[in-house]
Amino acid sequence: MVQATALPRNEAGIDTAIGILKQQFGDRLQTGDAICEQHGHTTTWITNQPPDAVVFPHSTDEVAEIIRVCAAHKVPVIPFGTGTSLEGHVNAPAGGVSVDLMQMNKILAVNSQDLDCVVQPGVTREQLNTYLRDQGLFFPIDPGANASLGGMASTRASGTNAVRYGTMKDNVIALEAVMPDGEIIRTAQRAKKSSAGYDLTRLLIGSEGTLGLITEVTLRLQGIPEGISSARCSFPSVDAACQAAMMTIQFGIPVARIELLDAASVGACNAYSKLDLPEEPLLLLEFHGSEASVIEQAETFGGIAEEFGGTGFQATTSTEERNKLWQARHDLYWAVLQLRPGATGISTDVCVPISRLAECVTKTQDKATELGLMATVAGHVGDGNFHTLLLIDKSNPDEMGKADDLVGWLNDLAISMDGTCTGEHGIGQGKRPYLQKELGPATRYMKMIKATFDPDNIMNPGKIL
Amino acid sequence: MVQATALPRNEAGIDTAIGILKQQFGDRLQTGDAICEQHGHTTTWITNQPPDAVVFPHSTDEVAEIIRVCAAHKVPVIPFGTGTSLEGHVNAPAGGVSVDLMQMNKILAVNSQDLDCVVQPGVTREQLNTYLRDQGLFFPIDPGANASLGGMASTRASGTNAVRYGTMKDNVIALEAVMPDGEIIRTAQRAKKSSAGYDLTRLLIGSEGTLGLITEVTLRLQGIPEGISSARCSFPSVDAACQAAMMTIQFGIPVARIELLDAASVGACNAYSKLDLPEEPLLLLEFHGSEASVIEQAETFGGIAEEFGGTGFQATTSTEERNKLWQARHDLYWAVLQLRPGATGISTDVCVPISRLAECVTKTQDKATELGLMATVAGHVGDGNFHTLLLIDKSNPDEMGKADDLVGWLNDLAISMDGTCTGEHGIGQGKRPYLQKELGPATRYMKMIKATFDPDNIMNPGKIL
Repeated sequence: MVQATALPRNEAGIDTAIGILKQQFGDRLQTGDAICEQHGHTTTWITNQPPDAVVFPHSTDEVAEIIRVCAAHKVPVIPFGTGTSLEGHVNAPAGGVSVDLMQMNKILAVNSQDLDCVVQPGVTREQLNTYLRDQGLFFPIDPGANASLGGMASTRASGTNAVRYGTMKDNVIALEAVMPDGEIIRTAQRAKKSSAGYDLTRLLIGSEGTLGLITEVTLRLQGIPEGISSARCSFPSVDAACQAAMMTIQFGIPVARIELLDAASVGACNAYSKLDLPEEPLLLLEFHGSEASVIEQAETFGGIAEEFGGTGFQATTSTEERNKLWQARHDLYWAVLQLRPGATGISTDVCVPISRLAECVTKTQDKATELGLMATVAGHVGDGNFHTLLLIDKSNPDEMGKADDLVGWLNDLAISMDGTCTGEHGIGQGKRPYLQKELGPATRYMKMIKATFDPDNIMNPGKIL
Repeated sequence: MVQATALPRNEAGIDTAIGILKQQFGDRLQTGDAICEQHGHTTTWITNQPPDAVVFPHSTDEVAEIIRVCAAHKVPVIPFGTGTSLEGHVNAPAGGVSVDLMQMNKILAVNSQDLDCVVQPGVTREQLNTYLRDQGLFFPIDPGANASLGGMASTRASGTNAVRYGTMKDNVIALEAVMPDGEIIRTAQRAKKSSAGYDLTRLLIGSEGTLGLITEVTLRLQGIPEGISSARCSFPSVDAACQAAMMTIQFGIPVARIELLDAASVGACNAYSKLDLPEEPLLLLEFHGSEASVIEQAETFGGIAEEFGGTGFQATTSTEERNKLWQARHDLYWAVLQLRPGATGISTDVCVPISRLAECVTKTQDKATELGLMATVAGHVGDGNFHTLLLIDKSNPDEMGKADDLVGWLNDLAISMDGTCTGEHGIGQGKRPYLQKELGPATRYMKMIKATFDPDNIMNPGKIL
């Protein structure tokens, strides 16, 4: 495990604040070891730093009350959703109160004419999409986990559909948030666009709970397309697959998804999901549009794929076949873990200009081989974003050291290519040194914002900055 | 004219800073009355407040030097592009130095594989698109004026293509800016998406030069679509046209443009552009995609239009016919001005949820009639954004008073409909009271950011907040 740094604790303040909150929240405030430990746990390789208490609010006013009590006693407040973040986002390095938002899980309004909805932060993406289906609507952002929408906003999440529909920054219209002093604000009205003042919506998106706690999210929705087709094609090399992906984007095909799996990932899928895909680099695509246009899009892609040595091109509009393929992609993390039973998965998250993608992926594969690490690659290649999944025996310090080396080396490589150390997972605790390398002088202004909003550093301390 | 409030002047500081800058910039610093007055002028009904000097930098380092000198002497810095903003954005209510960026007009890089480019802030949108055309690329954001890209970022501009391609917030990847203390920062790398830290890119976009001066813009580009078709259809009422627009969006037709003209606007177009469109509410549309899909999209729209009583539906893939129609739309401002020669045009800019659009437009037309004001309506109806253009004799105080009443009444109406007082023009001097009404408590956090970045309030003072 990577050791997260502990920060100084305000013991007296923590005791007092928890005492006050206990009076108010009763059984909805818990201090047991197991629940605290679980609320410091994320899908991560960073050591656990549990909070001192977990509280389960039911309303924005209750969140404001929690933050006012914590602010008065200078006690850390750590927002918690589904606990599926990857960079130690919910750890409590200075202790404090974890605010579990999963009981704030109401869909407050669906404005189907306006293609938007308003949800509480604990609503998960699958819950929302199940609710919307009958109305012919969907919300496109799909990180691997069934994450909460408040958490997805907080980490500026994206996923396989981002190439077509953008990330959380593009799909949130407005936020309600409780600020570090306990004030409740709305960042925008419900209009689809606005030039009214500083964009606090986008400032809070990706701020990982360090500037305020999101209590309501207004989201853009999409109509479920009339037609959906999917396609797959194998390639002789990762480079060829990346070139085909780049050409597809340049050609203006409005792909909804374009995912790369390296040969090892394909092998893992075959074993786990009982498929018989050729064990070569693979592109998986999905197209959204009218019934005629999705067939046309798939055919156009087929032509491009052929130019780059693609083989085994198959396209389908069958829902069953499509779901089988995408379920396999969805289960990839678990499939890859089976390649080395008992191993811990460590995911990287760099994103580079698409012209540098093939080089970046290939160098990463070579580096993993050189270090003797077991690693697979899968990526949202239309965006230039890919994940290396390292399979590590975390009880082996040598392996852990090499994994740490590879992660750092790759973050540096991506930054040197005018890319970022994180396309969608966020900075959290794990990537703070790389944020400094990536944006240097700009981080001083991030610190100024943090200091003026939250002078006592109570909101999710030890993250991002 | 609406009187803009003057702010206290720092005479000694202004004299000293201009003296220092004159040494350095020679003829590239001007203090003549005419040039200063011209640099306080915008397409606006707000009184002119000229700066004390205008300086023409050639590089980011020169901008940094200007800001450092002004910061040292607490002198206002007002960025200037093409001077086409509408809310007094370039006025100098406390005097100071206007920084004219139009000599920083180089296209620094076009990365065609990555579909992005890097430009200096004085590059205009038409200059960029002319440059890109041979490479099969274009930049979609098209405010009415041939504005500079730095200015467009500063006001979070959009235009007719926003329904498909988004606004400046969606099409800027990264910014270089000089901050109020003279430091040069880059807000992001060139990767298409990122979760690295606070989104300073989006914070600067729409900040109207009050937080920093944009010196370089990295933009997303689009491939010129294989097929483009356009269509028009007349409707018995504004309400019917808005309903058809709403259904088109809900149906998932990926319209590139969907513009509403009221009957008066159509009449003005007929006269000015020598057309013979039926003088009824009109929707003008454009579709981008493959050659087959744009024909299909237009046909699907035709079917929807018919349901809402649309008549005279015509679609075409002819470039000549399309350009004629869109040129008329583009010239609408001038066409409408001809309805009352000598009058001043005053444009509103509200944006509401699309379900409230028809009601908002109709009430506005009724209100103008009630006040006896000559007014036309045109709008980016796919976004819920429309402009009422009031034709006012500005020497008549009664008319000016009524215009002011209507603008205020409409801003309040839009806010009451969960909309915004500005979809794309910005707050500037003119809409500051409405920003307070619209976002209330959130503006306190905007003020905190302003105060911590720019404690002496030198960056474009008197705007937004």
